[in-house]
Amino acid sequence: MAEALEVKHAQRQLKAINQALDSGRFMHVRKTIHDMPACDIALLLESSPSKSRTELWDMLDADFYGDVLEELSEDVRNGIITQMMPEKVVDALEDMEIDDLAETLSSLPQSVSKDVLKSMDEQDRQRAEKALSYGEDTAGFIMNTDAITLRSDVTIEVILRYLRLKGEIPESTDTFYVVSRNDTLIGTVPVTKLLTAMPDSSIEDIMDEDAEAIPVNMPETDVAKLFARYDWLSAPVVDSNRQLLGRITIDDVVDIIREDAEHSMMSMAGLDDEEDTFAPVLQSTQRRSVWLAVNLVTALLAAAVSDLFEATLSQMAVLAILNTIVPSMGGVAGNQTLTLVIRGMALGHVSAGNSKWLISKELAIGFFNGAIWAVLIASVIAIWKQDWMLGGVIAFAMMINMIAAGLAGATLPLVMKKLKIDPALAGSVILTTITDVVGIFAFLGTATLLLV
Amino acid sequence: MAEALEVKHAQRQLKAINQALDSGRFMHVRKTIHDMPACDIALLLESSPSKSRTELWDMLDADFYGDVLEELSEDVRNGIITQMMPEKVVDALEDMEIDDLAETLSSLPQSVSKDVLKSMDEQDRQRAEKALSYGEDTAGFIMNTDAITLRSDVTIEVILRYLRLKGEIPESTDTFYVVSRNDTLIGTVPVTKLLTAMPDSSIEDIMDEDAEAIPVNMPETDVAKLFARYDWLSAPVVDSNRQLLGRITIDDVVDIIREDAEHSMMSMAGLDDEEDTFAPVLQSTQRRSVWLAVNLVTALLAAAVSDLFEATLSQMAVLAILNTIVPSMGGVAGNQTLTLVIRGMALGHVSAGNSKWLISKELAIGFFNGAIWAVLIASVIAIWKQDWMLGGVIAFAMMINMIAAGLAGATLPLVMKKLKIDPALAGSVILTTITDVVGIFAFLGTATLLLV
Repeated sequence: MAEALEVKHAQRQLKAINQALDSGRFMHVRKTIHDMPACDIALLLESSPSKSRTELWDMLDADFYGDVLEELSEDVRNGIITQMMPEKVVDALEDMEIDDLAETLSSLPQSVSKDVLKSMDEQDRQRAEKALSYGEDTAGFIMNTDAITLRSDVTIEVILRYLRLKGEIPESTDTFYVVSRNDTLIGTVPVTKLLTAMPDSSIEDIMDEDAEAIPVNMPETDVAKLFARYDWLSAPVVDSNRQLLGRITIDDVVDIIREDAEHSMMSMAGLDDEEDTFAPVLQSTQRRSVWLAVNLVTALLAAAVSDLFEATLSQMAVLAILNTIVPSMGGVAGNQTLTLVIRGMALGHVSAGNSKWLISKELAIGFFNGAIWAVLIASVIAIWKQDWMLGGVIAFAMMINMIAAGLAGATLPLVMKKLKIDPALAGSVILTTITDVVGIFAFLGTATLLLV
Repeated sequence: MAEALEVKHAQRQLKAINQALDSGRFMHVRKTIHDMPACDIALLLESSPSKSRTELWDMLDADFYGDVLEELSEDVRNGIITQMMPEKVVDALEDMEIDDLAETLSSLPQSVSKDVLKSMDEQDRQRAEKALSYGEDTAGFIMNTDAITLRSDVTIEVILRYLRLKGEIPESTDTFYVVSRNDTLIGTVPVTKLLTAMPDSSIEDIMDEDAEAIPVNMPETDVAKLFARYDWLSAPVVDSNRQLLGRITIDDVVDIIREDAEHSMMSMAGLDDEEDTFAPVLQSTQRRSVWLAVNLVTALLAAAVSDLFEATLSQMAVLAILNTIVPSMGGVAGNQTLTLVIRGMALGHVSAGNSKWLISKELAIGFFNGAIWAVLIASVIAIWKQDWMLGGVIAFAMMINMIAAGLAGATLPLVMKKLKIDPALAGSVILTTITDVVGIFAFLGTATLLLV
């Protein structure tokens, strides 16, 4: 029995390897990574700056290339592959399972993937092109074609004899599929049922005829939702004629579930999901600049709104000092609503059926939030600046902006989804623009009317 | 063969049920939900406002209570259970698997869970108290005790006869565990290997002696990382003497992986992970107010910094108008870095071994970002306000703040982790405070020195 596992072990190992690299003890590093499983080598590469990454890759046995590439995240994998010779890439990809191969090829720059496809042998190329033809992010793209199929009229005894002859069953097999003569899926048999069934019973007697199948063109996020909801370990994939094409296993779905959940967080900060923490400086600077450019426009827009009130501001400097409070509170409240609605949509809780209720709920919260923080900020300002009128003005602006924030936070993602724009990506920028503009208008506008 | 599945179907059903509820067609609703699987009923409850939730729950057969409760998220489940009579709760929880039972009990208010435990029969109570004793969020808490154990000296033939007699194998069983006389785990046998092995070979011949086991006190997030990394479907749980205590299956781990990934996004917006999208208005208002209170203090702090420059602001209203641009850009850049580092830590990529490299990388990006946006904003302001000197001042402040943002975004999560504070929770507030204060100081301070 192996040592009980410790996650910290991996981190210590990482540190040791980095120190060994720095001090030039390459033999030691080579020996260490030779004994590591592929997933740990992948973690090591992902945790290393790009310079050490190249050094580590060069020390790796070519036999391991495929296994390690399979485990790497897109950005890191592409960085490594584009530096390899096409023939070496072909060697590395040869042993990959078909779903991993398709994913790897589709994420490579087109010129590289073309080169790789060209250097493949006929059969592999056909398999790869077939998987690619289903389109990225569909069930067909993430399925494997190694499902074991059975006929319904044979007995358990015969199946067992056949399996013992075959000697090996593909990894993560928990279910066998029963197909008719023309490969139509007619039922499923869990592996465990073969163990408990009497030898003389036939597959027909023990198969589940109601098992559900995934259409080959279903988007992968929907596939992931079904797996999570029904606790599946694997599921068959069929075409529109119910012909069995392959199977999807939970290990690939776990990655999709994690990526989907991460996607919202990364998008809301204006980052690419696959952004590599240890990418070179210039590449990272460039990737993040889109978001900063959008924000600059937003910030200038807010400044332009303030600019309308220049006369007011030059008469009362105190307004300039307090001008950021109302927009800031509206931004936070609106982002809370936005985040909650985006998550609700991802979990399948929010849809057309209950969106009206949700918007009125968030409006009500905005109203209560507005009332609470209006009273509080009015008191603080009245005491700090000894001006009750000023307190009243900021309270009024707070009230208006909190209601606007609730309304915008709840409706924006719903509207954007209808327009087929990813709400996580653009939602928070648009929201902040709204709460900035409304907040400044409400505060400086009211002040101009009442105080100057 | 059942219809190929469609995710949209669930949403249409949801809408239809809500409409039926609104128009008082209760018999229709009762009939519809009677035919739905537990996970779909759970989704329906989670997607309904609290009023409809109670109505729907009352229409449900008591036999379904347990299965549906198991699938619900914490907040929604607690809302329902606290309105049920303790005896009914006990009935509902009776058939739950031990890991789900422990989770449900631990999330209930203490008074309710005490009542429930008291009403349970002796054996169930002991099982539940045992699971609770391992502590929430540990391997012991999420494991099941239904693992099938084998002895190493028996033949496959004997095992198969035993399994056929037994007739049923627990759900999600992909591996049998081989134990010695005192229940020490000595090996594992995949279910599929029993199918391919020759009948006269013994378990000893085919078992894997190097299979890894999870210590009972390992935190659940570490368990999830191991499952994701090694593509496990299940894993044995052992105590410090390597005695087998139970097993953890991938379906429970999938939930943990999703919750972990969601946790950062929700925390960064100041929301509780379990926050229920359809909770009553006042409950939601109260939950979100903590974050708004913190933000009010932050906003007032920023105002207080501006207040130091009141004399400058009253001389040049244009400074008031431009005062938000530099803090806003710093906030966005800093949050990008923060989000990336928090995700890197969650994936296990960022640790003490490479944190120095990471901080210098983010400093460099801050420097480049600063240079790019300084030139841009200087040009915009110089043209807009016809004042090159003002453009120079804002450019200088932008440079300073972008570097501060990179430094703060990279170091904050590392420092907070050392202090054992959740970086996702407090990180973005502290960061924004830093970028606000530095941005305002740099801009108004320089302006005071050079322009007034």
